[in-house]
Amino acid sequence: MTTPSASPLHPRVVIIGCGFGGLEAARALRGAAVDVTLVDKTNHHLFQPLLYQVATAGLSAPAIAAPIRHLFRQQRNVTTLLGEVTRIDVGQRTVHLADGATLPYDHLIVAAGATHSYFSRDDWAAYAPGLKTLEDAFEIRRRILLAFEAAEKEPDPARRADWLNFVVVGAGPTGVEMAGTLAEIAHHTLPGEFRHIDPASAKIILLEGGARVLQAMPEALSQRAKEQLEKLGVDVRLNARVTAIDSDGLKVESLASASTSSANSYQINSKCIVWAAGVAASPLGRHLADATGASIDRAGRVVVEPDLTLPGHPEISVIGDLAAAKSHVAGHEPTPVPGVSPGAKQMGRATAANILRRLAGQPTQPFRYRDYGNLATIGRNSAVVDLTSPAGPVRFSGYFAWLFWLFAHVYFLIGFRNRLVVLLDWAWAYWSFARYARVVTGIERHETAPPSPTPPGT
Amino acid sequence: MTTPSASPLHPRVVIIGCGFGGLEAARALRGAAVDVTLVDKTNHHLFQPLLYQVATAGLSAPAIAAPIRHLFRQQRNVTTLLGEVTRIDVGQRTVHLADGATLPYDHLIVAAGATHSYFSRDDWAAYAPGLKTLEDAFEIRRRILLAFEAAEKEPDPARRADWLNFVVVGAGPTGVEMAGTLAEIAHHTLPGEFRHIDPASAKIILLEGGARVLQAMPEALSQRAKEQLEKLGVDVRLNARVTAIDSDGLKVESLASASTSSANSYQINSKCIVWAAGVAASPLGRHLADATGASIDRAGRVVVEPDLTLPGHPEISVIGDLAAAKSHVAGHEPTPVPGVSPGAKQMGRATAANILRRLAGQPTQPFRYRDYGNLATIGRNSAVVDLTSPAGPVRFSGYFAWLFWLFAHVYFLIGFRNRLVVLLDWAWAYWSFARYARVVTGIERHETAPPSPTPPGT
Repeated sequence: MTTPSASPLHPRVVIIGCGFGGLEAARALRGAAVDVTLVDKTNHHLFQPLLYQVATAGLSAPAIAAPIRHLFRQQRNVTTLLGEVTRIDVGQRTVHLADGATLPYDHLIVAAGATHSYFSRDDWAAYAPGLKTLEDAFEIRRRILLAFEAAEKEPDPARRADWLNFVVVGAGPTGVEMAGTLAEIAHHTLPGEFRHIDPASAKIILLEGGARVLQAMPEALSQRAKEQLEKLGVDVRLNARVTAIDSDGLKVESLASASTSSANSYQINSKCIVWAAGVAASPLGRHLADATGASIDRAGRVVVEPDLTLPGHPEISVIGDLAAAKSHVAGHEPTPVPGVSPGAKQMGRATAANILRRLAGQPTQPFRYRDYGNLATIGRNSAVVDLTSPAGPVRFSGYFAWLFWLFAHVYFLIGFRNRLVVLLDWAWAYWSFARYARVVTGIERHETAPPSPTPPGT
Repeated sequence: MTTPSASPLHPRVVIIGCGFGGLEAARALRGAAVDVTLVDKTNHHLFQPLLYQVATAGLSAPAIAAPIRHLFRQQRNVTTLLGEVTRIDVGQRTVHLADGATLPYDHLIVAAGATHSYFSRDDWAAYAPGLKTLEDAFEIRRRILLAFEAAEKEPDPARRADWLNFVVVGAGPTGVEMAGTLAEIAHHTLPGEFRHIDPASAKIILLEGGARVLQAMPEALSQRAKEQLEKLGVDVRLNARVTAIDSDGLKVESLASASTSSANSYQINSKCIVWAAGVAASPLGRHLADATGASIDRAGRVVVEPDLTLPGHPEISVIGDLAAAKSHVAGHEPTPVPGVSPGAKQMGRATAANILRRLAGQPTQPFRYRDYGNLATIGRNSAVVDLTSPAGPVRFSGYFAWLFWLFAHVYFLIGFRNRLVVLLDWAWAYWSFARYARVVTGIERHETAPPSPTPPGT
């Protein structure tokens, strides 16, 4: 079964995945004489940098998720399909979906992204959910809010304390945001609402295997971020490696200092653990590598040519978190492109331009990543900013960094309405300290003490 | 295990359920020398009159759900508990929760509400979800949006048409709102977003077993509502009784007219059926009746005394949709209280006042329901209003009725913030015809063609 194409005379571009890369590629093909089919396994584009706000009940899901179909309603050369890709036939040039549909392509853009990785310890997933999809965010929101509810009902002081231990594993941007916001919830949002516990007595522990938080940032900003986290009440533990996770909590191995090699191992009891430590590329990466002979790196990302296509397959581009891509500047050694949303967006636009060049019989151009800098928020009034400017780096932290972060993120949110609503939600949350999206559904399934394994497919 | 009480010297009032009745009862006890424990199986008070807007992607869940704990943060005599009541021991005067906790009471208010009823055909639930909880609303939203997605991918014209048949069973307020909003989605929100189907070709069928829509309304307004529905493109079928529902659709028996008794039976193919036909009281009703000897009516509601307590149990009040209550006006025959939110709220306040009278050694007062009228919305710019005034009934319909309905509902939403956000969401939806909450999660579980049975506990 072949899905009918609106205009079979135009070259067919199939895009897999509507994250930042796929979205920008499709947009950049606006007005071009191509038929674009955009396939995603959800019906929405997700503004992932704010997903932690959904997980911490600061924003509702619709505020950061835009229906893909709606985004492209006026771009007539785009057909949106909800579906899951099971197989790519690079010989026949077809993409196969789980529902049996087949999409023929003349050019394929694979932008299927990444998911969290437990470093071969997939059994940890049940006790320490990661944060990539809206379902993940709902699950984490549920666990956070129900932990406080369970503590309120728990008469045994030791068990009550366990319910109030929150652990975030991994101090990259997501881990830092989660830990900072958890501290804000415990110290500012919930106090006064409980009768038997003091939510401010909750412990927020941020575990990082490396020697500093936000390793993509310059060292001085990492240090500032750590200080700001500690000011918010977060217990930041560096050089701390997780060796086990179960329904009671985690086992941690800590290298006390760099000078001593003696590790000391200890247990943290916790019922609410958030995994922000590892990322692995979509399994489509390996599938593509097997089919084309391309290589993949340790994180499962596909090693691409300078123009982001696969070796020997100029009709297949891989972009975003799925690509192990390099930035090419004449006269310089190529440098790896970081796995951040500006990188994915730039790859999407570059790929669209290269496809149009190829259709016009022109040579493609190597990808060049423009690094405008790096932002990370920590919590209320706290962020670190590292901007790249022609005059050298601009680095600042604290309140103005937070304002900068806030407006940058609201600006980049897709669509005017979302921006407005997010600003209003935040303005309200800021002045009132309230978090309005504290809705938990499906409680029956989740109320029992040990976190139950997430049902398959959620 | 007994949950510790903050101040054991005060009489303990336990309230089961935080719908309109339970919420108002707890609020009306503000400042009283009682210890109130409010138990609900969710963490939020739900503004149910707008639940259909969540189901039809017009509002996000947090816009109509307020965390109970947050609502009572400043009312120090209220303790909020998340938990499910399994048993009431009327002899020991204790309420037992699923997690093992026991709540002793001096006065008990049971406000556990109602759920949808399939008239002993519970197997229909999998194919025709009802609309009582946020989970229900998400499930219906999912089915509506995924039906259009499936139609877009379906090459067979007959099967495509089946995906675009939407059936609402029951033409009470919820059924009328659902049908009207579905028509709005098909005709105004989605057109232009699909490439292979015309969403405006969707059929919206509203089946009603009785002879008119909105039977609680005066007959002339029922007629106006039907005309407005038909203007919106809804196919309204009266005297149509559903005899079977399965994954293909429904079987309907139609009494062609009142004059002929010959029923004609036919099939409607549909993949998206919404059940808005029957309501049954919480099973706690029967449990209470068994324990106290009180009687229950056909809908499972507990028959209460004039002061809303149980016969022989002045310490147990039953209010809201769980109570078969009458309104008492001196010199008039008692009249049944309708199952609407103003009724529940008034019962909540009256019960709080009676508890305080009883504690003060005064006699309780019979409940008197004040009927301010009846509103129902139909869709964009359409509603019917039937107000009770000292000068006689005031009835109107159409645009001004819709504005009246809109402001009444926004006004009654709990909390300033929700009101503001709902108004903004609606203003935006009104001018843009967009529905912003078109987020579907858990697609994997639901994408396959026949609607899969809802997993237990959702």
